[in-house]
Amino acid sequence: MTAAANLERTLHEEIPLSRAMGIRVVACNDSSLQLAAPLAPNINHKSTAFGGSLYSLAVLCGWSLLHLKLREAGLHKHIVIQESSIRYLLPVEGEMTAECRLDETAFARFLRTLHKHGRSRLALDVVIMQDGRPAVEFSGRYVVHG
Amino acid sequence: MTAAANLERTLHEEIPLSRAMGIRVVACNDSSLQLAAPLAPNINHKSTAFGGSLYSLAVLCGWSLLHLKLREAGLHKHIVIQESSIRYLLPVEGEMTAECRLDETAFARFLRTLHKHGRSRLALDVVIMQDGRPAVEFSGRYVVHG
Repeated sequence: MTAAANLERTLHEEIPLSRAMGIRVVACNDSSLQLAAPLAPNINHKSTAFGGSLYSLAVLCGWSLLHLKLREAGLHKHIVIQESSIRYLLPVEGEMTAECRLDETAFARFLRTLHKHGRSRLALDVVIMQDGRPAVEFSGRYVVHG
Repeated sequence: MTAAANLERTLHEEIPLSRAMGIRVVACNDSSLQLAAPLAPNINHKSTAFGGSLYSLAVLCGWSLLHLKLREAGLHKHIVIQESSIRYLLPVEGEMTAECRLDETAFARFLRTLHKHGRSRLALDVVIMQDGRPAVEFSGRYVVHG
């Protein structure tokens, strides 16, 4: 099973709301990850994507990239979201696609702290695009511990 | 039908994820509103409430209070979330209950701007408590327009 299929199964099994939202893993590689979800289960009263669904997709996108990177490093740790902020720039009128890209320098620093103290924090940015323009900007601080 | 029952029906009909989450209106009066949701559909991999569910409950709690206050004032306007931030202080290990309280002075100022310009913004804070202590603090800025 590929890393993407494994991750999708993990999300659906462990966070049932991700299944209700129809979240799937679109792409993942060493330094970025994309999650998507259809509009229908995530629609709001204005026939665009519900702000809570956009947030959930974004927070899971960051979590998923960090989860895969930790697995890749042979580390099985707990990852929790500590705080975050989100800006809604444009309504999302169709399928939602979120992307998180890793800053390799920040990740290396994060890993050094984790090895040294058994606990470390990492800030991750996630963007949801609409017709080539950023529609949602999310920034989350994740805590990883043993 | 009471205002609470009406609101719950509106949420479930217009934002289907609120039904999937099991959100219900616990209490509402002139200056505060409580929404709740059970843990089961909102659980995460650590058997506590998923951060995206906590966010969704909070953002809808603020939206709902503003929706009722605008109806009360005879105004049928669009309400959208513009930006928000959230802090997770403690894991939520059971039913989630969110509460939003209105600052009457800020609301009066918001209404004056809305009457004058047909558009206005209001910041609302929402707290989710756990065993008498704040577990989640949410702050959202909502935009209302005609």
